[in-house]
Amino acid sequence: MMNKYRLMSPGPTPVPPEVSAAGALPIIHHRTPEFGEVFTRVNENLQRVFLTEADIFTFSASGTGAFEAAVQNLFSPGDKMLVVNNGNFGERWVKMGRAFGLEIVELKYDWGVKADNDEVAEAVASNPDLKAAACVLSETSTGTVNDIKGFAEATRDVITIVDAVSGLGACELRTDEWGVDVVVAGSQKALMTPPGLGFVSVSERAMAAHEESTMPRYYFDFTAAKKAYAKNPPQTPWTPAVSVIIQLDLAVQQILSEGLENVFERHVLLGRAAREGIKGMGLTLFGPDEDMNSAVTAAYVPEGIDGKAFVGGLFREHGIQVAGGQGPQEGKIFRIGHCGYFDAYDIIATIAAAELALEAQGFDLELGKGVGAAQRVFSKSGAVA
Amino acid sequence: MMNKYRLMSPGPTPVPPEVSAAGALPIIHHRTPEFGEVFTRVNENLQRVFLTEADIFTFSASGTGAFEAAVQNLFSPGDKMLVVNNGNFGERWVKMGRAFGLEIVELKYDWGVKADNDEVAEAVASNPDLKAAACVLSETSTGTVNDIKGFAEATRDVITIVDAVSGLGACELRTDEWGVDVVVAGSQKALMTPPGLGFVSVSERAMAAHEESTMPRYYFDFTAAKKAYAKNPPQTPWTPAVSVIIQLDLAVQQILSEGLENVFERHVLLGRAAREGIKGMGLTLFGPDEDMNSAVTAAYVPEGIDGKAFVGGLFREHGIQVAGGQGPQEGKIFRIGHCGYFDAYDIIATIAAAELALEAQGFDLELGKGVGAAQRVFSKSGAVA
Repeated sequence: MMNKYRLMSPGPTPVPPEVSAAGALPIIHHRTPEFGEVFTRVNENLQRVFLTEADIFTFSASGTGAFEAAVQNLFSPGDKMLVVNNGNFGERWVKMGRAFGLEIVELKYDWGVKADNDEVAEAVASNPDLKAAACVLSETSTGTVNDIKGFAEATRDVITIVDAVSGLGACELRTDEWGVDVVVAGSQKALMTPPGLGFVSVSERAMAAHEESTMPRYYFDFTAAKKAYAKNPPQTPWTPAVSVIIQLDLAVQQILSEGLENVFERHVLLGRAAREGIKGMGLTLFGPDEDMNSAVTAAYVPEGIDGKAFVGGLFREHGIQVAGGQGPQEGKIFRIGHCGYFDAYDIIATIAAAELALEAQGFDLELGKGVGAAQRVFSKSGAVA
Repeated sequence: MMNKYRLMSPGPTPVPPEVSAAGALPIIHHRTPEFGEVFTRVNENLQRVFLTEADIFTFSASGTGAFEAAVQNLFSPGDKMLVVNNGNFGERWVKMGRAFGLEIVELKYDWGVKADNDEVAEAVASNPDLKAAACVLSETSTGTVNDIKGFAEATRDVITIVDAVSGLGACELRTDEWGVDVVVAGSQKALMTPPGLGFVSVSERAMAAHEESTMPRYYFDFTAAKKAYAKNPPQTPWTPAVSVIIQLDLAVQQILSEGLENVFERHVLLGRAAREGIKGMGLTLFGPDEDMNSAVTAAYVPEGIDGKAFVGGLFREHGIQVAGGQGPQEGKIFRIGHCGYFDAYDIIATIAAAELALEAQGFDLELGKGVGAAQRVFSKSGAVA
């Protein structure tokens, strides 16, 4: 039977129809009052989503490019950065920092294990020459969400960098209130926009560090960005991905119109329903069973089932695109993304399809049991009618 | 009266309606056979447009980002690069090279003056430790096109880098035949695609230089790109701007379906018509009056007319977005972009509007004279019916 395509991966994620449609608008020039109006609004609205009054620089690049912007602009070669590594992205920031000649203090945890902020505080205390500390908010590779409030407290004396690529707009992140200096994000996750834009919010303390940094840079230079933003209307130093910014403008308006606190609450429910659905069909969660994990839900593929065939079959037979495991978890886990434009029935469809796919492969389950568990989460909550 | 919006700037440029429409397609995942099919085709088709058999790496970034990729991947700090600087982009590559600690041998010409390839050859001969030489194909700031065939001959002993951001697909560039090692381009000019993608083609000799280079890099790393391209189907190392790549796929098919040689010829005619139109209305061209200048046409704003007001009025009163001058030419010249999705009547409309705008500001001209001169170019050619 024909099945619709349902993108349930942790990024890129589906975009609302209004945002999609705006991708077909004619290209306008980026040095015009018309674009300036869009860019002014999107910058102000991004601050509301990032919960910061700091400048947020938009780069035409993926989230990895935006993280590179942070590394190039805050450090000088030889500087010391603490990195929490509890997944594929933590691992990536370790490699990137080393590629740029930083000395990396690595706090390594098994995949799926949250960072221990007491250990973070200890590492900060025992490295008085530390310049900055970085942690992933939502580790896409495992679904685990780190306690960033505690991380920011533990790293108060240094520049705090948070990779919120898949987390921003899905998981609670109170940038200024918690004292996070730098937040890195991307357009293609909970911001409900096609991939192509990366963001870096930069506190005054981080901007001061930038001014002392000697790392070579040009495309991602904060000073060039700051100068272009100071124009009236604000601009980017180089030609930006105009159509994606116009789409982002609509997506961010949609987030603010739902209400950021409602958006956080919706993601908590989506995650809770996904976890209950997984457990209800007799599978085992990967990572902690807690409401913080509101962006991505990861679960073990049951014994005797080929993980890659399961994920491939969900797509081919049911039209549902979830993600497999990365790195050491390849073939062992699968991941349901629900950061962004997702509702209750996306989760229900995914659990239903997973039940059918597992049954077809001989896994012993009762159809509808996982779905029922997910439904109960939504029916119990006041937030979803 | 209502006027349609006509984007006549040298970038971003308008995109064909089919390419526009594809921007509204649902986002698909970038690690799927479906995306792999698109990416395989677009890579092969790009080689036909670049006229090279070399790998072409696609980065989610502007053209400036793609140039940074070249700088980061080919050099080590302290390496020597020759840069032809005869406009805003030549100037930019000088600054970027210095930002990355390169020693720059700068061959500086006045804006609008073409590089002298005898002088290039002399500079190569007198700098035996030169690693590479860079030149802009079409200098967007002035409309001047450099003789890249001669440049590649003069720099045969070193790595030849060509910035073809506004030139590729508009001006003749025979990468492999002329011996160009590295071509940098962007999606938003003659490739008729929204901004957001940068390209770097890398010859075997350039790839060998990359392997020796010690410049820190991560996001733009050729080795990471090469590794991802070697997968089946080919991939990008980081999440690409999926929707823009899907648009690019259609745009490049359209270029090949018109025929690359026809595309070159169309641009020659567009440029010739623009120049004749400019002269026909009594204005003076900026830069040489020659068929090579097929991507952008620049002209002096007549004495006594405010250049910024003229460009602003063309947009506000006539809906036609041309560009003003940059740097030392700010307010003194205006630039008509015609690299990409442009036809005869785009040029005619632009000349007609410029005539009306100049007449309204008291400039003495005969309406239709410039238009007639442009028309004659098209009627004389066999290529445009």
